[in-house]
Amino acid sequence: MSKFKTPIVILNFKTYLESSGSNALNLAKALEVASDESGINMVAGPQSTDIYRIKDETRIPIVAQHIDNISPGGHTGSNLLECLKEAGIDGSLINHSEKRMTLADIDENIRKLRDNDLYSIVCTNNVNTSASIAGFNPNFIAVEPPELIGTGISVSQAEPEVVEGTVRRVKTVNKNIKVLCGAGISTGDDMKAALDLGAEGVLLASGIILSESPEKALLDLVSKI
Amino acid sequence: MSKFKTPIVILNFKTYLESSGSNALNLAKALEVASDESGINMVAGPQSTDIYRIKDETRIPIVAQHIDNISPGGHTGSNLLECLKEAGIDGSLINHSEKRMTLADIDENIRKLRDNDLYSIVCTNNVNTSASIAGFNPNFIAVEPPELIGTGISVSQAEPEVVEGTVRRVKTVNKNIKVLCGAGISTGDDMKAALDLGAEGVLLASGIILSESPEKALLDLVSKI
Amino acid sequence: MSKFKTPIVILNFKTYLESSGSNALNLAKALEVASDESGINMVAGPQSTDIYRIKDETRIPIVAQHIDNISPGGHTGSNLLECLKEAGIDGSLINHSEKRMTLADIDENIRKLRDNDLYSIVCTNNVNTSASIAGFNPNFIAVEPPELIGTGISVSQAEPEVVEGTVRRVKTVNKNIKVLCGAGISTGDDMKAALDLGAEGVLLASGIILSESPEKALLDLVSKI
Amino acid sequence: MSKFKTPIVILNFKTYLESSGSNALNLAKALEVASDESGINMVAGPQSTDIYRIKDETRIPIVAQHIDNISPGGHTGSNLLECLKEAGIDGSLINHSEKRMTLADIDENIRKLRDNDLYSIVCTNNVNTSASIAGFNPNFIAVEPPELIGTGISVSQAEPEVVEGTVRRVKTVNKNIKVLCGAGISTGDDMKAALDLGAEGVLLASGIILSESPEKALLDLVSKI
Repeated sequence: MSKFKTPIVILNFKTYLESSGSNALNLAKALEVASDESGINMVAGPQSTDIYRIKDETRIPIVAQHIDNISPGGHTGSNLLECLKEAGIDGSLINHSEKRMTLADIDENIRKLRDNDLYSIVCTNNVNTSASIAGFNPNFIAVEPPELIGTGISVSQAEPEVVEGTVRRVKTVNKNIKVLCGAGISTGDDMKAALDLGAEGVLLASGIILSESPEKALLDLVSKI
Repeated sequence: MSKFKTPIVILNFKTYLESSGSNALNLAKALEVASDESGINMVAGPQSTDIYRIKDETRIPIVAQHIDNISPGGHTGSNLLECLKEAGIDGSLINHSEKRMTLADIDENIRKLRDNDLYSIVCTNNVNTSASIAGFNPNFIAVEPPELIGTGISVSQAEPEVVEGTVRRVKTVNKNIKVLCGAGISTGDDMKAALDLGAEGVLLASGIILSESPEKALLDLVSKI
Repeated sequence: MSKFKTPIVILNFKTYLESSGSNALNLAKALEVASDESGINMVAGPQSTDIYRIKDETRIPIVAQHIDNISPGGHTGSNLLECLKEAGIDGSLINHSEKRMTLADIDENIRKLRDNDLYSIVCTNNVNTSASIAGFNPNFIAVEPPELIGTGISVSQAEPEVVEGTVRRVKTVNKNIKVLCGAGISTGDDMKAALDLGAEGVLLASGIILSESPEKALLDLVSKI
Repeated sequence: MSKFKTPIVILNFKTYLESSGSNALNLAKALEVASDESGINMVAGPQSTDIYRIKDETRIPIVAQHIDNISPGGHTGSNLLECLKEAGIDGSLINHSEKRMTLADIDENIRKLRDNDLYSIVCTNNVNTSASIAGFNPNFIAVEPPELIGTGISVSQAEPEVVEGTVRRVKTVNKNIKVLCGAGISTGDDMKAALDLGAEGVLLASGIILSESPEKALLDLVSKI
């Protein structure tokens, strides 16, 4: 599935004003331009409210930030996987550190995404939890030590052993699962360091969203690959 | 604000397949037709994923099913009020029985909606909690005894004292707050009974969503007003 | 019920090592001594694990820190009100800022405590939520602006209008409900300021728990009444 | 550690009136008698409120039903591991289906229990999640298909492949981890079937708690080993 060919850059839009509504659309377009220009696959992770519009006006692949593990019915305030899929997602983040899930729900969500031909990107906090998740065979595992998220200190440079250890343990379970490096990634050096450690892409957020020019920041990010 | 002129019908789309994606759009159009035909205001409460599309393709007023009480920033998996507003909401449900909130969050959400010229519809479960919420001056209070939700047994007929008591207590606090009748409403008789008890509208869901023809069901609903 | 005669000092033990196990017992004994010596009612709020032992070895009144709104049955990890009552509680905190509850659960918990002849102390975060809770007729409302909790900056001195406003609004609803002042209270001056504003006691925690001599700190606290 | 020598019977007291307060003490004594008489290790899992008293008045090993993953400090309404340990626990259930935890919290809780020389019994819902948890090296994994809990239909008889599969997958990861069979176990035949499938004990609840004579029911349970 070429939309998620590695190396890959997945941008979690979170809930910044700079990544909401028309700003979200602009950010998605920046991803599109940077992806076209660099030849590196890039993916948008907007708020569920913005998915339909971004799908309608760009060609960028889209992942949801979260999906509640629910079945069709009475779940006011949630979004159904089927609804998100029709709106245009190609996959979903699961278990982000700002939206942790139970083990049973992670297991179920990975399975539902697979059954719907959608990509699963499970966030984990250390080597052990990454190895634990590998047994569910998601497409990606994004390891993010929570203490580094939003700090600008990249895990690939500050705690290389977390990335290396995750890659080694995950590949032992299933060599088709790809490891992403999250937490604190923002520059070309961070991304190069991540790939050198065996990661096949990055999951990032504020470093790009809040930069003066997201497009330039994205091009810088992939400049040393 | 004439979009919410009473008597009013607010339809919570919840997370049924019958109210997701293109089905959600069709349901919104049914509301539009039934509203035009009957002259009664009707409002759609779709999943956040479907808001933008419904806004784009219909003229029906829209409320979100829920808004997390967050500020812009790192809240992966939530939707920002500002994002929902730009997508097209005119207001939001708060504290639905399937998505209860803390008191502090209810208070804050009502205030934020008011500051953004958006309508607040707070769901409550009995006379006492309705009176308690009235002090925050939301636009609407929708009283729904949880044991009746989804049963097809209407609160206006099974527990008229809950509706009457809510109207009396709420109006004592602030006569501008309007009381809606939720839980089990689906027919013209249910709605007439609700209005006779002092309610100024209804909040409903599965009774319409799962009916063979939502449009006919909506017209039947308002046929005895 | 003379155990809760005002002015009153309620000490939330929270989950410090200094207030766990045998340290909790010592803290309860410090409350007992300080209460006997000063003639001011003092109440212990230990972890549920420590309630039975404190009841067994002291005469100090005890409140739970929290009670889940459950019925007897399958609720692994919770504690039943009936179980806590048999262990020795005289009442319970409800809706502490570190354990917020939904409105429906607050309503139900106040009712259950009353039906069991136990005291309810509901924590609130501002004047509006305090007025809202007053309608449920709890025994006490403890107003604690969350931003001041654990700061050592007392609400009675930093935001006197919050205390005054809460007293005025709560007493309008039901003059028998007593207002406690929480957040940042630790000295005799703080407590005097609270009482001067119309509060009838204080709810406090780390200021006493972490002091070198809790007994002396408690005696200082009530020295200016 | 001989207290948890297998085959073993762990009784989750949950929150029944029949297993609260003095009833909890009686139930613990029934476990003690049945354990002495049968020579099979039995363990009590009471509400946190009852731990100290049971420790004080019986010799039965005790596990907590749940421990929040918190550090000492401000966590009103929780119980600190250190507090539970001082009260007398020998271990704790983790991730019971009525109190699911996030993956990061499960990982951390297993580690903290091990560091405190306490036993960890992690509940899981299927073969896959059991294998996933095995990587964290808990002492026990109790597999309980949620749809069978409280039904009286035993997993060892209704879904033997779940027990067998869990044993096989868990032992592949670490042969020292012991698998317990939960959900619906209540008779000697259920327990024998569980052991025949490779389980080394059972985790049970209402079948014993609500029986006319827990002592007899426990003796019956282990009569066919």
